[in-house]
Amino acid sequence: MRLERVAVIGVGLIGGSFALALKQAQACARVVGVGRSPANLKQALERGVIDAIETDAGAAARGAQLVLIAAPVAQFPPILKSLARDLAPGTVITDAGSTKRDVVDAARAALGAKSAQFVPAHPIAGAEKSGAGAAYAELFRDRRVILTPPEENSRAAVSMVEQAWVACGARVFRMEPAEHDAVLATVSHLPHVLAYALVHEVAQRGNAQQLFSYAAGGFRDFTRIASSHPEMWRDICLANRDRLEQELSRFSMKLNDVKKMLADPAGLEKLFAEARAARQRWLDGKFEA
Amino acid sequence: MRLERVAVIGVGLIGGSFALALKQAQACARVVGVGRSPANLKQALERGVIDAIETDAGAAARGAQLVLIAAPVAQFPPILKSLARDLAPGTVITDAGSTKRDVVDAARAALGAKSAQFVPAHPIAGAEKSGAGAAYAELFRDRRVILTPPEENSRAAVSMVEQAWVACGARVFRMEPAEHDAVLATVSHLPHVLAYALVHEVAQRGNAQQLFSYAAGGFRDFTRIASSHPEMWRDICLANRDRLEQELSRFSMKLNDVKKMLADPAGLEKLFAEARAARQRWLDGKFEA
Repeated sequence: MRLERVAVIGVGLIGGSFALALKQAQACARVVGVGRSPANLKQALERGVIDAIETDAGAAARGAQLVLIAAPVAQFPPILKSLARDLAPGTVITDAGSTKRDVVDAARAALGAKSAQFVPAHPIAGAEKSGAGAAYAELFRDRRVILTPPEENSRAAVSMVEQAWVACGARVFRMEPAEHDAVLATVSHLPHVLAYALVHEVAQRGNAQQLFSYAAGGFRDFTRIASSHPEMWRDICLANRDRLEQELSRFSMKLNDVKKMLADPAGLEKLFAEARAARQRWLDGKFEA
Repeated sequence: MRLERVAVIGVGLIGGSFALALKQAQACARVVGVGRSPANLKQALERGVIDAIETDAGAAARGAQLVLIAAPVAQFPPILKSLARDLAPGTVITDAGSTKRDVVDAARAALGAKSAQFVPAHPIAGAEKSGAGAAYAELFRDRRVILTPPEENSRAAVSMVEQAWVACGARVFRMEPAEHDAVLATVSHLPHVLAYALVHEVAQRGNAQQLFSYAAGGFRDFTRIASSHPEMWRDICLANRDRLEQELSRFSMKLNDVKKMLADPAGLEKLFAEARAARQRWLDGKFEA
């Protein structure tokens, strides 16, 4: 695959790394970027992440074979509207949003019949760092990308998006949007909320300074994802609210079970041992498809 | 400080690293080790972590100036009983237990008047790896050690323990046992339980294989501490049960607040942003005493 022009809407960690990975694979000649922060776009240009800055999504998409929307999901409706105005039949749009039901709905609402050109996707990669300065070409190497293509997608459009991610070094899987949102609520959205909640709880205490001063490596790793982008995670939580509510309810019940186990040494040790064993099987790749 | 003989009861990550650190600082000539696993003790001997294996704590303490108990806290009563039998007046005992109220009580119960020779301590360091094979001399470098010396301790005894930890590169602080247990419940015991609970919850689901297969770097770091030693963490949770119950209740209320905020985008983003900012201040060392 060799694309002449790729437009990236939102040149942050994900969008910027996608651009760098495609360039490194020589899968695209030129990347144009759009974003809300002029300083960030300037840095992206200086680092060679993008080759030109465009003023809006519609302008960036002109002449592009592929457009990636890599912005917080609440911004998708206006971006899609801008893209819809003048979308050429040969241009394929995809995204990197962490939720998929809302993205599919937004694409249909904004693009109408042209939503056949929109292939929803979610690269399961990230870091707590954000912005074009954090982008790097290897971010997606051996990581999973989930496509949730609706029926109206052409095989050619889906294939272009798949090839782009394969060029980035990723492994591509397919799922229904609802299934995607359920799986990610459990293994990603819930842990992010738990980490944010714990740090916030500690920070709110009267003795926060003392508490933080005795927090160590376990706390640091557990809360790493609480340094994630607040707006992005606000949007994810709102877009996947029903699923996240379910996860929070289930997890609260789980904590209640654990609290009862504080009177049951054998049960508590069994739970800890089973969790450790499951995590080890996961680290050993035993859960890979 | 130059100790002729140090006894380490439980030659795991903590006990083994203490031995290696003292040797590296030339603060002790000879370390004798005691433990439940002959294979682990053999490995400790082969790696030069210890210089001899003793059959029980009492025998190891004979001729030792300093004894470190670095076993899961539920094992302290029999270990202390073994030490009490024939304890020389010049021998100082300390420990590395993650809870302190129960340890102080156990020392008084087992040692009687000789509990003046027991200086309770907790090095805030660790890793999810365990055993003598994981021990290394630098584990305590720049880490905090909390001493909770009771009134009956002599200044000489407290000073010996303090000097030993300083020789290991650690910074020594003092606290009351109850304060220690409250602080650690918040910043260490609660996160461990949350991580174990999340992994266990995922592992119990019917689609566990699928869920784990889409878990990524955020999940890995969040759950790193769920690979910790199950028996050690069972004992910590039981020993600090009242405090941990309080923390679990408060955290459940916090999750309930967050759940309500899924209808309040501004409130949710504010919470996420405040948590991220607090964590950054912590990483920047702004909470250091």
